[in-house]
Amino acid sequence: MAIVTVLGAGMMGSAICVPLVDRGHEVRLVGTHLDGAIIASLKASSWHPTLALELPRSIRPYALEELDEALDGVEFVGLGVSSPGVRWAAETLAPLLSRRLQRGALPGSFALFSITKGLEFEPSGLITLPDAFHGALPAPLAEILQPVAVAGPCIAGELARRVETSVVLTGRDRGAMERCRALLENEYYHVFIDDDVLGVEACAALKNAYAMGVAFAAGAHSAAGGQPGSIARHNYESAVFAQSIYEMQQICRLLGGDPASATWLPGVGDLDVTTNGGRTGRFGAHLGRGIGRDKAIAAMQGATLECLHVLEVMRSAIASWERAGVLQEDELPLLRHMAAVALDDAPVSVPFRAFFGRSSRPEVPSP
Amino acid sequence: MAIVTVLGAGMMGSAICVPLVDRGHEVRLVGTHLDGAIIASLKASSWHPTLALELPRSIRPYALEELDEALDGVEFVGLGVSSPGVRWAAETLAPLLSRRLQRGALPGSFALFSITKGLEFEPSGLITLPDAFHGALPAPLAEILQPVAVAGPCIAGELARRVETSVVLTGRDRGAMERCRALLENEYYHVFIDDDVLGVEACAALKNAYAMGVAFAAGAHSAAGGQPGSIARHNYESAVFAQSIYEMQQICRLLGGDPASATWLPGVGDLDVTTNGGRTGRFGAHLGRGIGRDKAIAAMQGATLECLHVLEVMRSAIASWERAGVLQEDELPLLRHMAAVALDDAPVSVPFRAFFGRSSRPEVPSP
Repeated sequence: MAIVTVLGAGMMGSAICVPLVDRGHEVRLVGTHLDGAIIASLKASSWHPTLALELPRSIRPYALEELDEALDGVEFVGLGVSSPGVRWAAETLAPLLSRRLQRGALPGSFALFSITKGLEFEPSGLITLPDAFHGALPAPLAEILQPVAVAGPCIAGELARRVETSVVLTGRDRGAMERCRALLENEYYHVFIDDDVLGVEACAALKNAYAMGVAFAAGAHSAAGGQPGSIARHNYESAVFAQSIYEMQQICRLLGGDPASATWLPGVGDLDVTTNGGRTGRFGAHLGRGIGRDKAIAAMQGATLECLHVLEVMRSAIASWERAGVLQEDELPLLRHMAAVALDDAPVSVPFRAFFGRSSRPEVPSP
Repeated sequence: MAIVTVLGAGMMGSAICVPLVDRGHEVRLVGTHLDGAIIASLKASSWHPTLALELPRSIRPYALEELDEALDGVEFVGLGVSSPGVRWAAETLAPLLSRRLQRGALPGSFALFSITKGLEFEPSGLITLPDAFHGALPAPLAEILQPVAVAGPCIAGELARRVETSVVLTGRDRGAMERCRALLENEYYHVFIDDDVLGVEACAALKNAYAMGVAFAAGAHSAAGGQPGSIARHNYESAVFAQSIYEMQQICRLLGGDPASATWLPGVGDLDVTTNGGRTGRFGAHLGRGIGRDKAIAAMQGATLECLHVLEVMRSAIASWERAGVLQEDELPLLRHMAAVALDDAPVSVPFRAFFGRSSRPEVPSP
């Protein structure tokens, strides 16, 4: 059994500790400066306030000030911070891990699994967050530390309740992925491996944006006075879902990844779970009701909306792909429409007719 | 504008008449011997009892005895019978159309669009229902009549209410598909074309079986005392959804079709809508609750369960693929499990670990 330290005690960082302790590992969960109340509650009673669940007592909570102690003897590090926290995490962990490296107290090849997912647009193009983390490490540490990203469909509150969950590990080092799989997998947490870092991470980021678009249908239905049920706007919704997977494949290709990543757990699976599970869908439904961008954001009462960031990143990427001549202006019509709605306050009017690679044609052809 | 006669006044046959009359066509809806009450109601008041909706009065209802009259001057025929009714429909239409062919009263190349979908297993292998229909026609008629199948995500009750709907036409004659698209498409009914008859029809049939499996999760959740919501068994459900698309791709390949058909409207889109829309999901949820096959069937109170027929057909196909050495026994694990549950009363125990092409490995590997 291994000693595992997870940094970030939000919902997903905390949830992944459950399969780890169930496997018998020694698990140390360290809060960031945002997690003070969570760690205090875990120390007092094992109650996790945002998961609304008592965690196994064998998970040991640590405050951020106790991070150094929590890294003693560590064999695996888990990264559960929010996307904007990735560089902070690299800078925070680097000196503590470097000191251990110098005194020979780290494994020779050290795997860090990250449940923080995403894409950033930099002058050089899109980069994945695990690569951004790795790039922020000092050279000796970067040489031995191999980041492995955990992607695929996983609602934290379900994993913490031991619901059957199937995820994908991706990374640039096969050995590190195999070691993480061996560390993490148990009878309800099923772990698959995919070498396509770019494709898998692109899907992990994009699903937040596309889940917003899938939810337009529910909002449009409720705005028209409809009730949820088997007769609603599922036809509308499922066409948007299918177009989402179609566009994800194209984006994987544009990034130099494998379009097939969009057709299984990282794309199809994660989009499905995201449309069922949470705030992105609620936000998309508000937009679909036609109340406008600002009111929709206000209705979310301050919840983090990853989709807005992803749409901004993708808008920059689209512009650079167009400049490079690898993307035409009638391609990715759904992504462009979602960006117009969520960033520019355009009205929702899904361009179904331009879907699936079909360019604009006469509105109603003659028979 | 064209004269269109649709045979079969069930929900889907009737629903497709709505975009047709909205385009200004002359639309004649003919009931089968199963649709007597529906046609009587439509004649009396335009009320469609199973769609629970008043249809546009411009749709003209005909009883089966009036079929000959309903075919006068016909330019397109629509087929909206149930799957077992396809051969009956061919035998019923053939003499009436042949007589018109002999006296030169049919268009030179005649397109029949079929919303009846499915696969049958025959000694020669799997065949699609449009091919079965075509094969049952006498030679002179078969030569001029090109069947075109309508597939993709469409809940009839939503189409009849003019919800945005995106479907796929497939067939062996490009001209017939283009003519049907020009006939059918309007501002809310979006029509895409795919030449991959085998792949598209395989997905259209398979989605009924896989939607049953996707719904196991909801049943398992409710059996464990859970309530619907964002914390349920969506992780379980989404992995089954993704594996469904993975297996559909493999089956398309085994049939000589294009795996890509499973990754857009015919597969991803139609599976999504089917999990949202109806009785297959309710049946799967009953099975997921663990009440057993017989009680689950009884709970459906006589509703047609296409999934049972599809699973029987696929079990024969699996056996023949194994005999031919093109399928291994650890492949299609979800389909095999669903057949065991729904046909043999095996308990639900989804083989997640065998998903995505991963063969059986040690239950819990050592780190």
